[in-house]
Amino acid sequence: MSQPIRLFVTGGTFDKEYDELTGRLFFKDTHIHEMLRLARSRLPIAVETLMMIDSLDMTEADRARLTERVRACDERQVVVTHGTDTMVETARTLLAARLDKTVVLTGAMVPYAFGSSDGLFNLGSALSFAQVLPAGVYVAMNGLSFHGDRVRKDRARGVFEPLA
Amino acid sequence: MSQPIRLFVTGGTFDKEYDELTGRLFFKDTHIHEMLRLARSRLPIAVETLMMIDSLDMTEADRARLTERVRACDERQVVVTHGTDTMVETARTLLAARLDKTVVLTGAMVPYAFGSSDGLFNLGSALSFAQVLPAGVYVAMNGLSFHGDRVRKDRARGVFEPLA
Amino acid sequence: MSQPIRLFVTGGTFDKEYDELTGRLFFKDTHIHEMLRLARSRLPIAVETLMMIDSLDMTEADRARLTERVRACDERQVVVTHGTDTMVETARTLLAARLDKTVVLTGAMVPYAFGSSDGLFNLGSALSFAQVLPAGVYVAMNGLSFHGDRVRKDRARGVFEPLA
Amino acid sequence: MSQPIRLFVTGGTFDKEYDELTGRLFFKDTHIHEMLRLARSRLPIAVETLMMIDSLDMTEADRARLTERVRACDERQVVVTHGTDTMVETARTLLAARLDKTVVLTGAMVPYAFGSSDGLFNLGSALSFAQVLPAGVYVAMNGLSFHGDRVRKDRARGVFEPLA
Repeated sequence: MSQPIRLFVTGGTFDKEYDELTGRLFFKDTHIHEMLRLARSRLPIAVETLMMIDSLDMTEADRARLTERVRACDERQVVVTHGTDTMVETARTLLAARLDKTVVLTGAMVPYAFGSSDGLFNLGSALSFAQVLPAGVYVAMNGLSFHGDRVRKDRARGVFEPLA
Repeated sequence: MSQPIRLFVTGGTFDKEYDELTGRLFFKDTHIHEMLRLARSRLPIAVETLMMIDSLDMTEADRARLTERVRACDERQVVVTHGTDTMVETARTLLAARLDKTVVLTGAMVPYAFGSSDGLFNLGSALSFAQVLPAGVYVAMNGLSFHGDRVRKDRARGVFEPLA
Repeated sequence: MSQPIRLFVTGGTFDKEYDELTGRLFFKDTHIHEMLRLARSRLPIAVETLMMIDSLDMTEADRARLTERVRACDERQVVVTHGTDTMVETARTLLAARLDKTVVLTGAMVPYAFGSSDGLFNLGSALSFAQVLPAGVYVAMNGLSFHGDRVRKDRARGVFEPLA
Repeated sequence: MSQPIRLFVTGGTFDKEYDELTGRLFFKDTHIHEMLRLARSRLPIAVETLMMIDSLDMTEADRARLTERVRACDERQVVVTHGTDTMVETARTLLAARLDKTVVLTGAMVPYAFGSSDGLFNLGSALSFAQVLPAGVYVAMNGLSFHGDRVRKDRARGVFEPLA
């Protein structure tokens, strides 16, 4: 049987919604539960919402809290949904904590609430990498997985790529 | 850099469409290209459509042809989209061929053309497992991966589960 | 203020869903409530589900029952969701009843549960025609409205057109 | 046969898209053509994009230009897609021009590119009202139609309502 997985929600594009009164994007509840239902997921996943923020607003205190929760949880396979802008910084913080777990960060370039989101694909990808990769910190985006210390985001093109 | 992946399309629920003249489901073109675009996939994938059929209509000759193509292709990481009804039978056929490749079969319970499909999640999952699992034949559905000789489909509930 | 509208649900492609266990289309609950919510409809509509059937299976008894309900309801503006195959026959039955109401039949070529349905457009169209057209029986499809006795469905092309 | 309809695009929430590089909403091309295709519209519609702007940015010069185009076009049935924030102001400008045409303004509370948009419903509604209502200027939203001089938008609730 598969090992239990912990999924930490931190917000990011993944979970942005359209506020029809202001015409702006905002955070309400996470879409993770709906996505897992759509996926007909049969994985033993415990979902925990830590924060619902744009990753550009994530502070060192937020990263410390996430790291502490990853360390403290019972599961050895962990997925973190995260905004893409500072996903790499958070990966570095998690790496520095030298946790003996497989931690996979993932996100989306387009909100799930938009019809054309890459979120469901990335979620399926991250949950799969988390089950098979050895202990370490990874970024899973666009079908690829990167070691947390060998990846950067090219913001101009909106893609993640390996550090040379 | 990631290894090249071969993706064989055989049809299945994944690719069914609604025929508005007859009110029936049918096959036209595969949705895989659109799905990879939506996923913003950055994987080096060669897509090859072998057949577009309901897996209940798949013959031994069809399975032999698929096996031959899996053996002959250059890639060592292979994903096969397949109807769920006989996915396990095809996994057994591929296993018997003792190929030294990682072959992952996946599919969907609901057509991709329906808004509520599990297809994109399963595709992300299968492509990830294919990159990391050792040589062998696997079924990837609903976030889980099964060894090809240790899985069955429970048709009454519409789920895959490990053989006891 | 707008007049109250009665909306009778009879099934049709509009409301078909995909049964993931059998791979067939079937009827469960109507999607009308979800569609009106999506539309942020502010119309005073009373929804009543009379039947949930393919219009090819609609009997004379079914049509008589629908006609009786249209006659008996309090509202003078009535919309009927209906399969397209025999929508014209039902329009003729309603016409023969010489009701002093505005009755608009509408439907969809593609189920609402599919992402690419014309249902929401047709529903907006039918509800609007019902508020403005004089008493009579109409078919509203694809943006057009037809008098119930001057329309036919071209099944080969899947479109409604005026009788010459 | 139905009369030809002119559809002027001015932008608004209707046509906003998500920019995955900046995480902001922006305008690219209009979605009207895709929406009419989805609707399987059989109406004779000439689409003309006049501007692609947020209606809060619409100037008096923009309104004058729209009014001039409505006056000058050959069609007597006109639909205008428009941001909801200043739709009422534009209706007043069009009214003041005393055009002998049926002009219906419509829009959406949620961008069409979002799965949950009211846009398709409103478009079906506006195109239907435009065919049947007498000459005048109207706002069509949420299934309702309002005379252009007897409507206001309640921004706090995001709905249009009749002036007392």
